[in-house]
Amino acid sequence: MNAARDLPDAGAVRAAAARLRGKAVLTPLLSSPLLDAKLGCRLLVKAECLQRTGSFKFRGAYNALAQLGTEARRAGVVAYSSGNHAQGVAAAAQLLGIPAVIVMPSDAPAIKAANTRSYGAEVVLYDRYRESREALGARLAAERGATLIPPFDDARVIAGQGTIGLELAEQAAAAGETIDIALASCSGGGLITGCALALAEASPRTKIFAVEPEQLDDMRRSLLAGRRVSNDPAARSICDALLSPTPGELTFAIAERLLAGGIAVSDDEVRTAMRVAFESLKLVLEPGGAAALAAALANKLDLGGKTVAVIASGGNVDRASFAAALADQ
Amino acid sequence: MNAARDLPDAGAVRAAAARLRGKAVLTPLLSSPLLDAKLGCRLLVKAECLQRTGSFKFRGAYNALAQLGTEARRAGVVAYSSGNHAQGVAAAAQLLGIPAVIVMPSDAPAIKAANTRSYGAEVVLYDRYRESREALGARLAAERGATLIPPFDDARVIAGQGTIGLELAEQAAAAGETIDIALASCSGGGLITGCALALAEASPRTKIFAVEPEQLDDMRRSLLAGRRVSNDPAARSICDALLSPTPGELTFAIAERLLAGGIAVSDDEVRTAMRVAFESLKLVLEPGGAAALAAALANKLDLGGKTVAVIASGGNVDRASFAAALADQ
Repeated sequence: MNAARDLPDAGAVRAAAARLRGKAVLTPLLSSPLLDAKLGCRLLVKAECLQRTGSFKFRGAYNALAQLGTEARRAGVVAYSSGNHAQGVAAAAQLLGIPAVIVMPSDAPAIKAANTRSYGAEVVLYDRYRESREALGARLAAERGATLIPPFDDARVIAGQGTIGLELAEQAAAAGETIDIALASCSGGGLITGCALALAEASPRTKIFAVEPEQLDDMRRSLLAGRRVSNDPAARSICDALLSPTPGELTFAIAERLLAGGIAVSDDEVRTAMRVAFESLKLVLEPGGAAALAAALANKLDLGGKTVAVIASGGNVDRASFAAALADQ
Repeated sequence: MNAARDLPDAGAVRAAAARLRGKAVLTPLLSSPLLDAKLGCRLLVKAECLQRTGSFKFRGAYNALAQLGTEARRAGVVAYSSGNHAQGVAAAAQLLGIPAVIVMPSDAPAIKAANTRSYGAEVVLYDRYRESREALGARLAAERGATLIPPFDDARVIAGQGTIGLELAEQAAAAGETIDIALASCSGGGLITGCALALAEASPRTKIFAVEPEQLDDMRRSLLAGRRVSNDPAARSICDALLSPTPGELTFAIAERLLAGGIAVSDDEVRTAMRVAFESLKLVLEPGGAAALAAALANKLDLGGKTVAVIASGGNVDRASFAAALADQ
C-alpha cells in the first residue's frame, strides 16, 4: 500500500492540521470594509502569503515529510520546483532534520535558489531546455534511496494544503460568517482540492471554484469535459506559480466530486488584484497568489450580498515585477 | 474631572482591549527564520499594518469614541489629521454611528481624503500655510458641541494603542517567547507609551525603545534632557506619520517612567526596512510603519541572541512612493 497514492479525505486534513500545529503560521483572515462596500459583498481574505516561506506550499511539504519513517528521513528527500514548492520542502526538511535535494532550472531567479539554499537544502541545477527535471529527480532519488516529494499529486501534500480550508472554516465561524463562495488558485490542484475536502465537511454550503490563468485553465476545461485535458504548451501567464499543464490524477478525482467549477482570469485582472491587495489589504501578493482575489474583483460570478472567501496563496515576487504591477494602469 | 487628561494605567489598557474585542483586528505576530538567521536574534513582527484602516490609529480612536455618552455621541466628534488618525477616527465613528468631522489640509493626498470620506466622515479642508488646524478644530467643536479627539495626548487614545502591547505579550507568551527588547515608532508617543503601560505589567523584563526619524527624535532627546524638547521646524523625513514636533504631556510622563530610551533612524534605513518587509514578511509598510523594523535591522542596539519585538505600525503608502522605496539601493 502506498499512502501517498490513496485518495485523501477530510480526516487526513484534520490529521495534517495536528501535525502542522505550532509549525505552520495560523495565517489571519483579513477583510476590508472599504473593499466590501465597493464589491457589494463580504470578502474574507486568507493571507497565506504570510505563511513560512511566503506561500502555502510549506504546509503540504511538512505534512508529507513528517510522515516519513526513521530510515526514510535519514535517506532524505528530493523535490523539483523552480519556486514555492522548493522553498516549502527545504524549510520543512530543515525543521525535521531531513537532508533535502532540490532540482531547480539553471535559469531560475537567483533569489529563489538562494532562499532554498538558505534553508539548508542542496540545490542541483539542470538545463530546462535539454534535461527533464522529472527524470533527474527520479535518478537522484534512486541513487540516494531518497523519497521524491511531488508538488501536488500526493495524498499527504493535498491534505497539508487542505489545512488552509480547515482554518478558513474555523476562522469564518468564529467571526459569525458563513462562506457562500470560496475561491482558490489552481495549478496542479493540491491547494484547491485539499481545501475542498476540508470545506465539504466543515462548511458544506460553500461553493468552491478553482481559479486559473486564461489559456492555462486546464482544470476548468477538464471539469467541463469530464476528463483531464492539457494546456497548449505555448500558453503564457504572469502567474509563474500556476503553469502546470494538466490536473493531477488524485486532484482531478477530488475536483470532479467537490468543485463547483473553474474560473479563468487575465494577466491584467491579476495585476489589478495585486494593486488592490497592496492598497486595501497591505499584502504583497505574487501574481499566482492574487489570482483568486482577481476572480472576485473582476465579477466573474454574481457575488452580490454573498460572503466570499479568497485564498491569497503566496507572495514570492521580485521587487521589479511588483513595482511594474503597481505602476500598470 | 476629565478622564481624557488622567494618566492611563495598565488597567485602562485592559479595559480598552475589552472594548476593542471583535472590532479591531487581532493582528498576527509574524517571524521569518531567514531574517532571524541574518540578524542573529529572534525577531517578532506585530503586523499592525493589517489593522482596520491600515494603521494602529483605529484602536485609540475607537477606545476614545466608545466611551462617549449618548449626548456626546449625538453631537459628534472632530479630529484633525492628514493621515492615519483621520481614517482611524472616521472608521470608529462609522462603526459607532457617531457623526465625524475631520479637518485635513487642502493639499493632503487625494487618496487620504477620499478614504476618510468613504468611512462616512465630513472632511473640512484648510490652508495649511494660512490657517491653524488646532484653532479650526476647536472652533468646529465649539460650534457643534462636538468632542475633539486628540491624536495622541489623551488617556483613552493612549490606552487604545496600548492594546497592541497587550496582544504582543499574550502572543509571545503563547509562542513560548520572552521579549527582551520591544521597538515601536514614536511621533507624539501614543503608541509607544500605551504599549509600555501594557508591557510593564505583562512582560516586565522587556526593555522598550521609541524609534524616531533622525532630526525628528524629540522623544529621544527629551528623555535624555529630562524635559520635553522640540524638533527643528526645518527637519524633514520620509516618515510622514512621525513628524510631531514634541512629545505630549501625558505621553512624556509615561515615557520618562517606562522607556529604556530612544533610537533615531535615517530615511535610508527606513527604505531598507520597507524592502525587507516586502521580501521577507510580504507586508506593505509605510515609512513610519517600518521605522521600528529599521532600528532592528540597522543594529542600533546589541540584539545578538535576544528576542526582539517590533511593531509594524502602518501601511498607508501610495504606489509611487512604495515603488521608489523598492527600487532604491
